Amino acid sequence: MTQDLDYKQVAQNKRESNLAKIPKEWLLETVPTPEEQPNVNEYLSTIIPKEEQEITALSATQLQQKIKSGELSAYQITYAYCHRSALVHQLTNCLIEIFYDRALERAKEQDAYFKSTGKLTGVLHGIPISLKDQINVPGITTSLGYLAPHISREHEITICHNEKKDKHSLIAQILYDQGAIFYVKTTVPMAMLGAETSSNYAITANSIDRTKSPGGSSGGESSLLAAQGSVIGLGTDIGGSIRGPCTQLGLFGLRASSNRFPYLDISNSYPNQITVPSVVGPMCRYLEDLELVSKIIIESQPWLKDPKCLPIEWKSKLEIDPKKVKFGVMPWDHEVMPHPPILRCLNEVQQQLSQNGVQAELIKEAPPVKHSSIANLLTDLYTCDNFQEITKFCELSGEPHPDLLKRSFNLPGKVDNLYEYMDKVEIKYKFQQAYDKFFNDKGYDAMIVPGWSSTSWTLGDNGKIANSYTRYLNPLDYTVLTVPVGKVDERDVEFERKDEEFGSAQDKISRREGYWFG
Amino acid sequence: MTQDLDYKQVAQNKRESNLAKIPKEWLLETVPTPEEQPNVNEYLSTIIPKEEQEITALSATQLQQKIKSGELSAYQITYAYCHRSALVHQLTNCLIEIFYDRALERAKEQDAYFKSTGKLTGVLHGIPISLKDQINVPGITTSLGYLAPHISREHEITICHNEKKDKHSLIAQILYDQGAIFYVKTTVPMAMLGAETSSNYAITANSIDRTKSPGGSSGGESSLLAAQGSVIGLGTDIGGSIRGPCTQLGLFGLRASSNRFPYLDISNSYPNQITVPSVVGPMCRYLEDLELVSKIIIESQPWLKDPKCLPIEWKSKLEIDPKKVKFGVMPWDHEVMPHPPILRCLNEVQQQLSQNGVQAELIKEAPPVKHSSIANLLTDLYTCDNFQEITKFCELSGEPHPDLLKRSFNLPGKVDNLYEYMDKVEIKYKFQQAYDKFFNDKGYDAMIVPGWSSTSWTLGDNGKIANSYTRYLNPLDYTVLTVPVGKVDERDVEFERKDEEFGSAQDKISRREGYWFG
Repeated sequence: MTQDLDYKQVAQNKRESNLAKIPKEWLLETVPTPEEQPNVNEYLSTIIPKEEQEITALSATQLQQKIKSGELSAYQITYAYCHRSALVHQLTNCLIEIFYDRALERAKEQDAYFKSTGKLTGVLHGIPISLKDQINVPGITTSLGYLAPHISREHEITICHNEKKDKHSLIAQILYDQGAIFYVKTTVPMAMLGAETSSNYAITANSIDRTKSPGGSSGGESSLLAAQGSVIGLGTDIGGSIRGPCTQLGLFGLRASSNRFPYLDISNSYPNQITVPSVVGPMCRYLEDLELVSKIIIESQPWLKDPKCLPIEWKSKLEIDPKKVKFGVMPWDHEVMPHPPILRCLNEVQQQLSQNGVQAELIKEAPPVKHSSIANLLTDLYTCDNFQEITKFCELSGEPHPDLLKRSFNLPGKVDNLYEYMDKVEIKYKFQQAYDKFFNDKGYDAMIVPGWSSTSWTLGDNGKIANSYTRYLNPLDYTVLTVPVGKVDERDVEFERKDEEFGSAQDKISRREGYWFG
Repeated sequence: MTQDLDYKQVAQNKRESNLAKIPKEWLLETVPTPEEQPNVNEYLSTIIPKEEQEITALSATQLQQKIKSGELSAYQITYAYCHRSALVHQLTNCLIEIFYDRALERAKEQDAYFKSTGKLTGVLHGIPISLKDQINVPGITTSLGYLAPHISREHEITICHNEKKDKHSLIAQILYDQGAIFYVKTTVPMAMLGAETSSNYAITANSIDRTKSPGGSSGGESSLLAAQGSVIGLGTDIGGSIRGPCTQLGLFGLRASSNRFPYLDISNSYPNQITVPSVVGPMCRYLEDLELVSKIIIESQPWLKDPKCLPIEWKSKLEIDPKKVKFGVMPWDHEVMPHPPILRCLNEVQQQLSQNGVQAELIKEAPPVKHSSIANLLTDLYTCDNFQEITKFCELSGEPHPDLLKRSFNLPGKVDNLYEYMDKVEIKYKFQQAYDKFFNDKGYDAMIVPGWSSTSWTLGDNGKIANSYTRYLNPLDYTVLTVPVGKVDERDVEFERKDEEFGSAQDKISRREGYWFG
């Protein structure tokens, strides 16, 4: 416990020191309220030079071409992203670490190298990449949503186990070796336990509608990406932390099966809970960028350095005949009905696939295992220490548990002994067997499911929403690609349901708020 | 506790019922003592018809050809193996379950099918395969070295979690679907915890020298295979249970990295200890058979049925230039010096590789992590319940813990709480990182190490031997192929060592017995 320092002061200092890292000319004189300027992109289009806007509108794959041809320099691109991310941060609180100096310096070096040799430093030469705050970068603090790491390096080591200050997380090193330019780290909720992104440092807003939440725990990433403050980001996911934020913000996100992408030297809560481990994965605005970055990571053969990583080679885009692919479409889980815009979009996807001759079979029956049972198992596993670790780390700075977590303290079914824990391991395996059988008996190559039960919600209202549409997929350990397919529009109106048509009590609760009218 | 049945009587009944399953004409009138007839193959060559001896001398790959050409029938092969296994069992106690009737019946059906269609029922049509007693086969008891399953089906379910009596373990189903003929299950030590194969049912002898041990826990398999009572067997390995028995008996054995071969529906002790899981793998007399059976298993895409199994395709024999392969040869671990014949054979391997232009670099330094530290970590993990499970299962029949396990009760460092257990998970990962770094920094494609520190030992002397040469490889989770390379001969004499040349106290203990003089 640090007696002589008020935790609120630590948070305030951190917020101020971040603003101090932003060049003065990029600081907003007054920050408009969310009500005045809900949409960050609309607002920024009025204050950012057109040349920069053109740069940040491109995909990384397009940027690669323009760098290669000499049309754009690494510095121009990096400058545009630093500038824009600084503005997005002032409007949404999406950044926890800012290091524009070294990013711009690196970009200059890359430009000099390119000028003198005619060669690029790597496949990602000049491409800015933002990192969720679990990813370690030499010399940059990692704090996992706690305040204590901002007080001392000892606390950082205690919380983050990042003893070596000169070391990138392996996945960051792989991208860095290919020329990627790191410039910011993005916010997370305390201990990454939350479906939105709040901590005693700040609450991060949704950049499409600042009155709403960007989801969590990779909500700093999603808000920054959607506001074009980044082109490729790295997030993590143990219960929906990539998929939720991507769904709220209309991004592509990849939660691969566990141990596909290397997690080595990424800081984490409960890093030794290996039954349902957290995974790291890319979040992007463009599908082609998601492929670009995934390919680079796998082709680096990360399994030679990370013993947990699976030695599965990159599979080049297969010559798949789309008419031979069979999708199962599961619009709801028979427990919580998704909100109208989600159902409409899913229906449109199915119709479009069918119209194009792709098999997309509507699944009418209930899933083979109740999704809430699988989700509850996951909660049991990652709260298995009854929040002892979190309580201990909060005490280092004197900060309180955020409300987000306080609610979780009342969850049932804690697992705090080894034998109970091992029983959960068995239950998880049985759930997987049952779901795999269903999947394979139906002959599906993939399933199409809602990314979330609702669109985004009022900032701070996390307790009212149902996140059962992501959490069941982690114990099942399926690879899940989040794909944006539509936005709310005037067709999305509430429909009447009789009492007996509700799938669960949670289903009724989920209708309390008409998020899609936002 | 079954009060009305003496556990010794249960064991006696089981031994007698097994003998009753052997056709009378295959029963030995008198069983020669180990001293009279130490070597099973030599003895059997005097009593088995020459035609049968010719069959059991062939590899499965050769048998496939002879079946295809019509030179041999499935029945002839199955008969030869049933007969021989019955004799080997009477000389070594290597079988726990015998089901010749159904094997011969299946062989007849396969012959009829082949005769009428001209087609084989699968790649393994007519090939007998023996199974370690963890593998489930419909209608056949699994007992894991306990007596209770021979008392009641309820006890079997309690111990083996094999609720469905009509179900093969997945790996057995895959082989069965390709025509494999199952005919016996082989002995294991209680709970598979032992480097030799003894239980209250019986102690299994080494078929090359019946006064010695076949190792464990897959010692029933190794003894049966080496005496040509089987051509392909399935074993399991959590600390050397495939590699030890293969080394003692001169067999090929494959302990692949965990979750490469499917473990679904294989009964096991502590099945939910997933930090260092037991693996299943083939044990064979011929390398070509090991390839044959591994290929069949992987090409069946077991990951579609076993959610733990990794989706890694079969790699066809690569066109490797042997001169580009780099081996590291580590003759000892700087803790326990292997016995003279082991060191001589390893030296010969290195010399032969070098003479053939293959890089085989002698590693002179100590390994990057003390092997005993890694082995102790493993012991901590698999004794994490302080033998509560074993004690409970023993009480079902009233049988005592075998001496083998009683010794283990005194081991230090039990882990019986969740946080300590998770700390071990982290230590394991760090060991792996350090060893992988060593391996890759040296540029090795593979390492050549002793399969065991000694040759076989006097039956029951397990407590005197050092098994540190296998156990460290399980937490590291390396794929290990056991290859027989030589036998003890007159050159293998003890060499003088000064006190300071011993690597550890265990090293001195390991020289108490000159096993290689046997």
